Formats: sequence, structure tokens, C-alpha cells
Amino acid sequence: MLHGANYDEAYEEARKRSQEHNLTFIHPFDDCAVIAGQATLGLELLEQAPDLEAVVAAIGGGGLISGVACALKETNPRIRVIGVQTARLASMKAAVEAGHPVTLPVSTTLADGIAVRRAGELTLPMVAKYVDEIVTVEEEEIANAVLLLLEREKILAEGAGAASLAALVNQKFSCAGKKVAVVISGGNMDVTLLARIIERGLVKDGRLIRLRIHLPDYPGALHRLTGVLAEHRANIVETSYNRAYFGVEFGDTAIDLTMETRGSEHVDEITAALSDAKYVFERIT
Amino acid sequence: MLHGANYDEAYEEARKRSQEHNLTFIHPFDDCAVIAGQATLGLELLEQAPDLEAVVAAIGGGGLISGVACALKETNPRIRVIGVQTARLASMKAAVEAGHPVTLPVSTTLADGIAVRRAGELTLPMVAKYVDEIVTVEEEEIANAVLLLLEREKILAEGAGAASLAALVNQKFSCAGKKVAVVISGGNMDVTLLARIIERGLVKDGRLIRLRIHLPDYPGALHRLTGVLAEHRANIVETSYNRAYFGVEFGDTAIDLTMETRGSEHVDEITAALSDAKYVFERIT
Repeated sequence: MLHGANYDEAYEEARKRSQEHNLTFIHPFDDCAVIAGQATLGLELLEQAPDLEAVVAAIGGGGLISGVACALKETNPRIRVIGVQTARLASMKAAVEAGHPVTLPVSTTLADGIAVRRAGELTLPMVAKYVDEIVTVEEEEIANAVLLLLEREKILAEGAGAASLAALVNQKFSCAGKKVAVVISGGNMDVTLLARIIERGLVKDGRLIRLRIHLPDYPGALHRLTGVLAEHRANIVETSYNRAYFGVEFGDTAIDLTMETRGSEHVDEITAALSDAKYVFERIT
Repeated sequence: MLHGANYDEAYEEARKRSQEHNLTFIHPFDDCAVIAGQATLGLELLEQAPDLEAVVAAIGGGGLISGVACALKETNPRIRVIGVQTARLASMKAAVEAGHPVTLPVSTTLADGIAVRRAGELTLPMVAKYVDEIVTVEEEEIANAVLLLLEREKILAEGAGAASLAALVNQKFSCAGKKVAVVISGGNMDVTLLARIIERGLVKDGRLIRLRIHLPDYPGALHRLTGVLAEHRANIVETSYNRAYFGVEFGDTAIDLTMETRGSEHVDEITAALSDAKYVFERIT
């Protein structure tokens, strides 16, 4: 049963239904058995890499990291455990600092799997005891980590799942020369959202650019322009004509062209070719 | 070194350079050592699943399947081996039928990793001897298999890598009740292409639709329309106004709205609401 737009609304509904129908409520993180189950991930890590020196995992309510950190630290206290939260909802960081759970204001994040506004009552003391450090990551960093996993590892992770890698890649903690395990903790990513993340990533890398180019308004003007672009192998994917806006001189036209390129060097080549051909244009970002 | 727009052009250049500079040319598929190396995949399959009954793998030049089929059949001749080619370049199928390699005309395909126009001299007799059946898959089937792997398995495969799954899912051969291994043989997928595959997949599932809606041309008309859509939670992602085209009555406007939906039931709900509100519209496909 799907209910509500976010974790809090779904949680409330589940609580209500469990009371109405006398059902067992299983808390997603503030539950000893759930935490113990997630601790087996820590045991598996130790089995697969007994010489581990640090482990990074995301924190939402804190269930996953409580279990993992407990398993690791009780076996080998020298292993560092780093928790990662989205900067938009760093509820566990706030709770550790305050010494008790704090309810943060509503916020949206790519990492919806860890968008929890209030740390757990059971998880907070475990995190305080076993986790060495809590760091935060920005939305852009999370999006880039999703793309990195997809392009390099061929793995689709959700935002919350990639947050741990985002912290590592952006050096939010020091682990140079150490043997580090990064827990990628979920792949529940909507492909619509993925398509948007890809597009933003392409724009950031210069592999998708939009230029507003001023053109004289006569037949053949666009054909001459597309000739220059074709010669330099820019792949036009979208066009939009503006005749009356954007300070266009009367008798002229401005066209917005969205193009796929091979990256920033290719963009430099294309813009140089347009300048050589005496076009007036600007890059839209 | 990147050269050429496709396999043939890159191949020619590599041949030329290896002769010019007296370098060792390693053929990508028509080479005994390459085939033997790929045969280890067959041995690994036997190790991991000794009770295998069928194996499906893609065929480009035929190196991978020659090795895998040889390893499987020489160990257990009862294991069925099915080869999969893109319908656009079924060069091995043509070669087996003709009894010798045939050069097919140039074609483009999502499965560029197996876009080989002519079967190998070494691989053809191996395929003829060890492969039970060669089936072909269509572009749309390949694209859907890429999406299926991404959404269900959280794996990014390239078109050639997903072709084998496409053949299985679309029942191109019979294997009901059998224990089948599907070789996903590559993940070299450009994210730009992936974004397009996702978009096409969403359109196919009705999760992305475009409606052309006729509107009276006065202030507030669009606001009334967006009210209907907002009430039914359609998420508008693109708009385009057409005042003078598409048989629009003078004084009226047609607007193309691209919307994200939850799928075909949601689309039915939205179009019913538009009809109830007396809008004239059509779905653009």
C-alpha cells in the first residue's frame, strides 16, 4: 500500500493502520531486531575483507549504521566508521550534537531513502557510541555519485545509496592510503529521476550545451549555421526560435540550440568555429 | 586511440597502423587465443551452476559464443546453446545458412557492440558445430531489455549486453521450465543514449505522454487547464504553444503538454477529467 508523499506521512499511516487493525508495527530503524539484522552486513564485510580500516555508510534514522558499526567495533575497535547524511536533513548529526533526537524541518532531497527528520531513540546512543564521525553531502555531490556508479561500476544506486560514495569522492573525511569499504545501500531509483540526473550531469560536464545564437532573418541563414555545427560534429537535439524577445534587433532572430558534444574541449572547438564564422552568441547555463 | 564511426572503420585503421608500425594485430574475435579466453566464461558457468540446461549469449563476430559453446558442449553436450543477433545485422545467421561468411550492408543498431557485418573465418565453423540455434531481436526489444536490467537488477548493460535477455524475455526460443543462464556481455553504454532509452521506455509505458489540447485564446484559459491537470497530479514537464498551425480555429490556440504520469491507468484518469471539463484534445505518439 502506497501512502503519502514522504517518509513521515507513510509512517503516520502505517502507525494508524496497525492500531486500527491490531497489526504488528515494525519500525524501519528504531527496532533492535532490525538493527541486529543490518549488523550482519558488518559481519559480512569482516569476512570478506578482514583487513578493513574504515567503513562508510549512509544514515537516515540510523538503523543500518548502528548495526554495522556495532558489529565492526565490537570485533575490531580500530576500524573507523563514518556516517553520511544529506546536508538537507542531517538529523542524526543534530541529535548527536544536542545529546537527544531533534526534529528538523521538512526538506526534499535526492536521497529520499535517508530523508528522516528525527533520529531514533535506540539508534542515537548506538551511533554516539560506535560511529567516529558524521559528515554531510550536498545534492549535487549525491547526483554525481549516482552517475559515477552508473558510468564506472554499471550499478544503479538510489540517492541514499550513493551518498556514502559521494562523501568518499568529495573527501569529506580523511582516509588516504586506507582500506575503505563503502556501503551502497539501495537501488530504488525511479528512472524518470535518473533521466534528469543524467541530463544535469551532461550539462555539468559540457556534454550537453545550449547556445543562443543571433541570426539574420532571411532564408538560408539557419542552413549556413547548421553547416558550421555539422562540420564540427555538434549533435543538435533541440531548437527554439525567438524573434521578438531577448533584445534581438528588428530583422534578426535568436535561436537557442541544445547540442550534444564530447565535452569541454569539443565545446571550445565549436564556439571558436562560431566566432570565426562571425556569429554573435552566448552560452545559456 | 579512437578512430571511425563504427567497427569497420576502426578495424581498417587498426590494420593499417599495425602494418605501418610493425605492431602485433589482435583480432577482436577471429583469433584462437581470444576465443579460448572467452571459453573460460563457459567453464565458470559450469562451476557455478553444474546443472545448467541452456545458455544464451549474444553474437557479433562470434568469438564469445564460440568459446563459451565449445567449453559447454565438450563438457556436457546436452546443454543447449542459443546465440542472439540483432535483426539489423544477423551476419552469423546468414553465414551459417550460406555455409560461408557473408558481408551484410551497413546498418545501425542499439547493440553496437555486436554490429559486425561479416562472421569470422574461425568462428563460423565453431558456431556451426556447437551452437544449437541463432535467434534475432528487434531494436525495441533490446531497448526494453536494457531498461528491465536497470529497473529490476540495477545493472547497466549496453545494447549488445542486453540482447541475450531480450531474446529470453521475448520468447525467441523455447526454454520453459529449464535452468537457463543469460550472459550479459557488456556495459559500455553512453549515458546520453541511456537517457534516450529511458525516455522512449517511459513513453511506451504511458509514464510520459504528450497531449495536444485546444484552448480558447484568452487570459486565464491556461490556468483553468492546469488546474484540471494539477487536481489529477499530472506533472507537466514541457509545454509548446501553437497558434497558427494544426487546424486551430482562429481565436483559439493549441498547446502541446508533455506530462509525467504513473502509467496507463493514470493516463485514463487524466484524459477522462479533460473530457469531463469539455476540452478538445488528442494524444500525440
